[in-house]
Amino acid sequence: MTTSGARAPVPREPRQERSRLTRERLVQSTMDALAHDGWAAATVAAVAERAGVSRGAAQHHFPTREALITAVLEQVFEEMTSTASGVLASLPDDEEDRVAAAVDRAVAIYTGTEFKAALQVWAAAASDPALRQLILPMEAKFARAAHQMTVAAIDPDNRYPDSHRIAQVTLDLARGLGLADTLSDDSRRRAQVVATWTEMVTAVIQVRSR
Amino acid sequence: MTTSGARAPVPREPRQERSRLTRERLVQSTMDALAHDGWAAATVAAVAERAGVSRGAAQHHFPTREALITAVLEQVFEEMTSTASGVLASLPDDEEDRVAAAVDRAVAIYTGTEFKAALQVWAAAASDPALRQLILPMEAKFARAAHQMTVAAIDPDNRYPDSHRIAQVTLDLARGLGLADTLSDDSRRRAQVVATWTEMVTAVIQVRSR
Repeated sequence: MTTSGARAPVPREPRQERSRLTRERLVQSTMDALAHDGWAAATVAAVAERAGVSRGAAQHHFPTREALITAVLEQVFEEMTSTASGVLASLPDDEEDRVAAAVDRAVAIYTGTEFKAALQVWAAAASDPALRQLILPMEAKFARAAHQMTVAAIDPDNRYPDSHRIAQVTLDLARGLGLADTLSDDSRRRAQVVATWTEMVTAVIQVRSR
Repeated sequence: MTTSGARAPVPREPRQERSRLTRERLVQSTMDALAHDGWAAATVAAVAERAGVSRGAAQHHFPTREALITAVLEQVFEEMTSTASGVLASLPDDEEDRVAAAVDRAVAIYTGTEFKAALQVWAAAASDPALRQLILPMEAKFARAAHQMTVAAIDPDNRYPDSHRIAQVTLDLARGLGLADTLSDDSRRRAQVVATWTEMVTAVIQVRSR
């Protein structure tokens, strides 16, 4: 510091705001820990260290690992839902462009950091019934939202009776592409698959709308 | 034992045969451990106990966890490939039935115990570059085999230029359905998605072959 003389008083963060920021930092660190270092790295103690938060403060916010994982999944699904809703804000008028935008958005949901974090919780839940019970309602809520948004993007005027089924295939396909993306950069192959699917959906919709 | 007198000589298993059986038992136990209890349960020591094999014997076959996981993945991919090849042995003549059989088979690959075991290795590999390097060539070999077989089932007479791309979408979709199946029984919803996709593939093939 090169300043001298009387310092300006440091504004004190209100306690509530500080507490909110600590909580956010812990959740974000858990998401990073899951996506990059896997399930074993996502304990309250390890995440506290990663976030530079004292273990006591971390335990104040998240007394158990279950509470921490619940908070992370809430945020994961919220961010995945907001990725999905992004497309609805700016839908192209052209039918083919609109389908392409909807498919791209569905794939974006499953190729981000959030999905990589969720996948670790998934894998852990396969052998942990209590964790599975925790996840299932959150995942069902997310699945409904993603499905509604995909239907709305593919078929905004509700003209095609098949759009619900096509939206389901789109999301399952996107999930499969997301899983392939966890091991290696799969973006070139993925672009081909996305193009094929977009073309098929556009063709079906055009046939039905004649 | 209620028998008395001279016992019939117990036929001795040849040493080699016994060794082969022990190895098989260890690999199968590892697959079960992964699919039902997750990555953490698949160590050489834990699997030896599960298989009722001494730790020394287990380490004779698999000196490292890496060696064990490699053997398991070889078997996983072999069984997944043989699931895929099953369809080629008995292809229906009718085009629609043939496509349905190919799609069902692709989905069967990703909804069995083998895929559930592989998924645990996948999830662990996301944060373990050495494990990833081990998996990638095996997974690439499997992906090529599954793709070839799906193309051959959809388009045995090599008549449709799109069949390679359609086979890719089929396998990615099947992988996404497999992942959804790890948390809860998803078979009813899956049947709808499979029916929609089969219908779309049949329609594309029929249009192109006119």
